[in-house]
Amino acid sequence: MKHRHQGVIGYVRNTKQTLVFSSADVSHIVARVGLDRLMDDVIHRLVTACEQYDESIASAPQRGGFEYDLPHVGLLEWMPAIRFGDHALIKIVGYHPQNPEQHALPTILSTNLRYDVQTGHLSSIIDGTFLTALRTGAASAVASRVLAAPGSSVLGIIGAGAQAITQLHGLSRVFQFDQVLLFDSDPTVSASFHERAAILGLTRTEMRTASCETVVGKADILCTATSVEIGAGPVFQDHELIRSSLHINAVGSDFPGKTEVPSSLLKRSLVCPDFRAQAIREGECQQLSEGEIGPDLVDLIQNAEKFETYRERPTVFDSTGWAIEDLIAADVLMNYGLEFGCGTLLDIESLSHDPKDPYAFVKGDEAITAHRAKRTVGLD
Amino acid sequence: MKHRHQGVIGYVRNTKQTLVFSSADVSHIVARVGLDRLMDDVIHRLVTACEQYDESIASAPQRGGFEYDLPHVGLLEWMPAIRFGDHALIKIVGYHPQNPEQHALPTILSTNLRYDVQTGHLSSIIDGTFLTALRTGAASAVASRVLAAPGSSVLGIIGAGAQAITQLHGLSRVFQFDQVLLFDSDPTVSASFHERAAILGLTRTEMRTASCETVVGKADILCTATSVEIGAGPVFQDHELIRSSLHINAVGSDFPGKTEVPSSLLKRSLVCPDFRAQAIREGECQQLSEGEIGPDLVDLIQNAEKFETYRERPTVFDSTGWAIEDLIAADVLMNYGLEFGCGTLLDIESLSHDPKDPYAFVKGDEAITAHRAKRTVGLD
Repeated sequence: MKHRHQGVIGYVRNTKQTLVFSSADVSHIVARVGLDRLMDDVIHRLVTACEQYDESIASAPQRGGFEYDLPHVGLLEWMPAIRFGDHALIKIVGYHPQNPEQHALPTILSTNLRYDVQTGHLSSIIDGTFLTALRTGAASAVASRVLAAPGSSVLGIIGAGAQAITQLHGLSRVFQFDQVLLFDSDPTVSASFHERAAILGLTRTEMRTASCETVVGKADILCTATSVEIGAGPVFQDHELIRSSLHINAVGSDFPGKTEVPSSLLKRSLVCPDFRAQAIREGECQQLSEGEIGPDLVDLIQNAEKFETYRERPTVFDSTGWAIEDLIAADVLMNYGLEFGCGTLLDIESLSHDPKDPYAFVKGDEAITAHRAKRTVGLD
Repeated sequence: MKHRHQGVIGYVRNTKQTLVFSSADVSHIVARVGLDRLMDDVIHRLVTACEQYDESIASAPQRGGFEYDLPHVGLLEWMPAIRFGDHALIKIVGYHPQNPEQHALPTILSTNLRYDVQTGHLSSIIDGTFLTALRTGAASAVASRVLAAPGSSVLGIIGAGAQAITQLHGLSRVFQFDQVLLFDSDPTVSASFHERAAILGLTRTEMRTASCETVVGKADILCTATSVEIGAGPVFQDHELIRSSLHINAVGSDFPGKTEVPSSLLKRSLVCPDFRAQAIREGECQQLSEGEIGPDLVDLIQNAEKFETYRERPTVFDSTGWAIEDLIAADVLMNYGLEFGCGTLLDIESLSHDPKDPYAFVKGDEAITAHRAKRTVGLD
């Protein structure tokens, strides 16, 4: 069943086996490359992808999903992206807010499936949980680099869970923060943030908890990354102490009815969705009319000079998650994995020597005929 | 990375590992159970699923997909189905008609991903190529059992590739055929059919090639399973020799613009789509107006007595592929796999002891900090 693959060339030419990266492989890759270089790679590639983006090269339709409440609210979504003529990445991502408490699992759990679009072959499988967190941080960095004030030194965080770590990570690659101010509705979560963020090595950055109002009032850049319930937003109040140049990365709004940012603040800000149609359905843009929505991420990057003039004005990056970000993040990790010879090749698809014979793969077995069954499904 | 799983209970409770069934596992399961019993199981379960079907129990939205022509026409689709509170099956299926000639791969290549909808965890992976063929055969059997004349003894096949084998298999479980008449636009394909069908053990059934007109004129039940190009259909002509009780399973029509059955014949038949909305977009129902479309598969089975009155009249099962069929077929195969202790447990998702720490899974590695990188993405 398993064969170690023979480096990049063997993999690229392999049309019949699936390269599976285990969590140990991902851990190995991260350890060898370093989190910072991975984050920088994703940031760089995302900027390039936005600069070059054209619907004839790549495409990512709006995600679909199952929403349910049995017994707890949950969501399972599929996010497909394609680089035409090359491969498609189908990310499956679950949002289950009860996970940490009930199953010791992250709220957002995800896997990435990569398909060869010349054949439909499943070419590789890799975790999406780490990659989703990584690319969400990278996307905020890319947007903030254009929209936030250049000297931004105070980062405010509302919702200090898993996504907050990668928000800080991504932003710390493009800004030098003196201070990170945290608020979480669960004090134990903000209390553990410093320890969880230690891996980022931000020794020159003071991190401390504060009231929600203080976080919002003092932030140059604010990240909202909460699991606020549907209809329960916003997660902070608009008030006059908010800096006139505040840039917000609104990360938690990703479900119809779930929003984090006060609508009054949205309405006086330049609001940039990552993916317009999706943000209108499930992002902060739910609170805006079409005409109140600013450029999307591609437009923002392709016309960065024009939009940099908003650095001194309030701006919001409405991050709902764009499948092209996932495609890029998976590319980065998989390419390192291939370079390092990581992964295990498995035969998953039931193929045969004769593509016109769906049963040929079992023909060697005499057992088949031994099991010849009498018809059990009669005509009524 | 790998552990053999400890039977059903260990698997059911496993919220962190993924059970991967290899093609060897599938082969083992098929050999041990027998193709006939597998087909019968899928037929039985599909009937039961249709009888009990209710949108509050299970759901399968219309599939989405990428269509492309780089350089050859191709399609990669995602077909999600959910059994609420239990699991979701996401089938990814490619349709690449150049596969047999260019890559020695089947035209339809597919993989199934099963997710726990309590957590979003990828619980198992299994081939979809064999299963797609199997369930497509089963679906035709289920529809034909209601709609075809009880004494049907001549099966006509137009398009004698991979799907034709499983059409014959499924139908032979509910009908006793004296004769199978074959036509394929490529004579080498129909010539090899007999050999490919040998595994079915239908020793009392004569199989021979014939002209398209003869196949259509003599068939009690007709299966069309071609890779006809978009806009090039129908694949046979309507004519007066067609039996007045002919039942057709139209399997190949699964793409906008791709149809197999003459519209005049459709218009005088009771046409039953497997999944109405999808059949209207990409099945034979493309050729009909809303009012000309008959019951869907669920309606057909839930009201079988009513529709059995059409057995003496022309009927068409418009089979575009319904994700609930895939969910059922995967259930059948996986349940046997679990019973037999097949499959390999892998750690794919990058999890950590702390669900709020996306980087905890790599923290043990001092290498991370050794690789601490200087910021390389400066503010412009």
